[in-house]
Amino acid sequence: MERITPFIVMDILAKARTIPDAVHMEVGEPDLSPSPKVQEAFIKAVKDRQFAYTPACGLPELREKIARHYLDAYGVSISPKRIIITPGTSGAFLIVLSLFSKLKKKLVLSDPSYPCYKNFSYFLNIDPHFITIGKDTNFEIPPESIENIKDMGGIMISSPANPTGSVYSAETLKRLINICDERKHWFISDEIYHGLVYDTKEHTALEFSDNAIVINSFSKYFCMPGIRVGWMILPEELLRPAEILIQNLLICTSTPAQFACLEAFDYPYLTSVRKVFSVRRDFLCAELADMFEIVAKPQGAFYVWADISRYSKDAFAFCSELLDNQGVAITPGIDFGSRWTDHVRFAYTQDIPVLREGVSRIRQFLAR
Amino acid sequence: MERITPFIVMDILAKARTIPDAVHMEVGEPDLSPSPKVQEAFIKAVKDRQFAYTPACGLPELREKIARHYLDAYGVSISPKRIIITPGTSGAFLIVLSLFSKLKKKLVLSDPSYPCYKNFSYFLNIDPHFITIGKDTNFEIPPESIENIKDMGGIMISSPANPTGSVYSAETLKRLINICDERKHWFISDEIYHGLVYDTKEHTALEFSDNAIVINSFSKYFCMPGIRVGWMILPEELLRPAEILIQNLLICTSTPAQFACLEAFDYPYLTSVRKVFSVRRDFLCAELADMFEIVAKPQGAFYVWADISRYSKDAFAFCSELLDNQGVAITPGIDFGSRWTDHVRFAYTQDIPVLREGVSRIRQFLAR
Repeated sequence: MERITPFIVMDILAKARTIPDAVHMEVGEPDLSPSPKVQEAFIKAVKDRQFAYTPACGLPELREKIARHYLDAYGVSISPKRIIITPGTSGAFLIVLSLFSKLKKKLVLSDPSYPCYKNFSYFLNIDPHFITIGKDTNFEIPPESIENIKDMGGIMISSPANPTGSVYSAETLKRLINICDERKHWFISDEIYHGLVYDTKEHTALEFSDNAIVINSFSKYFCMPGIRVGWMILPEELLRPAEILIQNLLICTSTPAQFACLEAFDYPYLTSVRKVFSVRRDFLCAELADMFEIVAKPQGAFYVWADISRYSKDAFAFCSELLDNQGVAITPGIDFGSRWTDHVRFAYTQDIPVLREGVSRIRQFLAR
Repeated sequence: MERITPFIVMDILAKARTIPDAVHMEVGEPDLSPSPKVQEAFIKAVKDRQFAYTPACGLPELREKIARHYLDAYGVSISPKRIIITPGTSGAFLIVLSLFSKLKKKLVLSDPSYPCYKNFSYFLNIDPHFITIGKDTNFEIPPESIENIKDMGGIMISSPANPTGSVYSAETLKRLINICDERKHWFISDEIYHGLVYDTKEHTALEFSDNAIVINSFSKYFCMPGIRVGWMILPEELLRPAEILIQNLLICTSTPAQFACLEAFDYPYLTSVRKVFSVRRDFLCAELADMFEIVAKPQGAFYVWADISRYSKDAFAFCSELLDNQGVAITPGIDFGSRWTDHVRFAYTQDIPVLREGVSRIRQFLAR
């Protein structure tokens, strides 16, 4: 447990919140509100006094709605009983990786990746095996790289990815999943940024195998990070072990919030959300291009991953100074892997005028 | 992890829900609604679009309100920064026991006790040391019994207790805490049933030591189990380690639900809640007295713990038959410890007419 690192972006956020006119380009959560239908359903649930526990695996109606979403969005038919509601993806990681830890095998992760992946692994005594990704690997874990890893038990990827915004091609995804299926490795697909994909079309791992484990939530595309509702889709044999863990470790997911999520699949509204982020991405990438090396033009999520080595080899100091001098908060690369000391992540979870102000202040900072 | 048992009462609940006219005397959650002020605050939070993450340790305003509650209810002054909001007591157990597990020492628990205590311990590789309690120990862990336990690192108690409804005397509580303080053992006090105490006055462990760790929630006395908001009060040195774990494992607690809890300390309403449960307790104890040996007249919580050995040595079979034949759901004792094969727990989380119907069916069942 000593290896668990602070989630640096959360500490930066806490500090940035104390600065009155700070520009928040560190925050990994949408600034947009969820669909008005969600708000109505939430209020109705509170008025109806929906304050009791739900079953451990979630509201049956919500599990059915999510199953319907997989049919509508991906053309994949999933039994609702394989869909389990969790307190955000955090709850799903806790349960899935706890079950994975029983294998006593290595978990393959990309470097960089979402910091909680490695920290959940350390917490649960899972040995992570990192594969460095970059332009040379098209920001994907190359399928051939997982063919000969000793004591490998599984792999966890995210697509679109945090912090790079990169999206796996269908071909790579399928090849990785096929290798895992052949070798009985777990393929864990974090699809939390699905829906926020701009130039291409994302694929759920379930299109390629029923053995894949999918984790997702209402936090990003659906614009409700704070309500803490997510889900996981498991193969049959993990359903009962997962339920027992949930009964003991979580009890259930917040009930009125689950009722609110019944109205989350408001596709016209969600299309407008995607459009907003797409425009911001184009704006921010264009503005940053002459200042930083944008390592990957992001195809999804709401982040820009940039190399700042022309200015500094110490991104943590760079970010601290930028925050202190200009009140602009961005995230140093080391949050996503210890080697990324000269990279930073910008989030476009603010409106264009705010992003414009942030960019302007960054320009002044660099011109010191 | 193989030692983690299913939470049997949750399985019974799931089965009982499929029986149309079932009498639910198994449910460990209040049937009453929270204060109307809570509902108003909840609706306001949704209308105000409070869907963003809060800081990892919770809404500052809520931490302040809880600190104020300790002053009002117990006369104890606690700094709000020592109060951390968690997703129910489940989240608090996960964090506190994770930190405890680093000691690699034994955790003393009573037998019987809330099943998740032992299951969290198994999950986190903590070795639980059980001390059997009963009439002979006044349903308390005797202070002298913890003086010579090899490799002891701490003790966790609940008062009022689940499943017995017993309440520790101030004297025993103080002696236990003093022993722990002297020996640098952790004293973890689960106070989730505080407020639901009928003939006596409960004491928070914080009255006796600032080193005590207190866990509580809005699930029982405040009548909001499903919203999943709890709290823990930690000694200073655990605050940063706890925050790092929360950032990584939980992110934060459901935001609109936290706003709702700002109005939870509605004392006139809460007094009416206690009165309702007090009347039910008197009714149910009187009705059950000629059928079962009520092991402990409950002083708190909303449970009656009864010995059924005059009818059966297999309480699990007894409960299953009672559910199948009469549609009355109660909880077998083995949920609370493997030795309690001839005990059951009745919950009075239903109105008197429902309890009366339940009692009448139990009478018919016994008269077969």
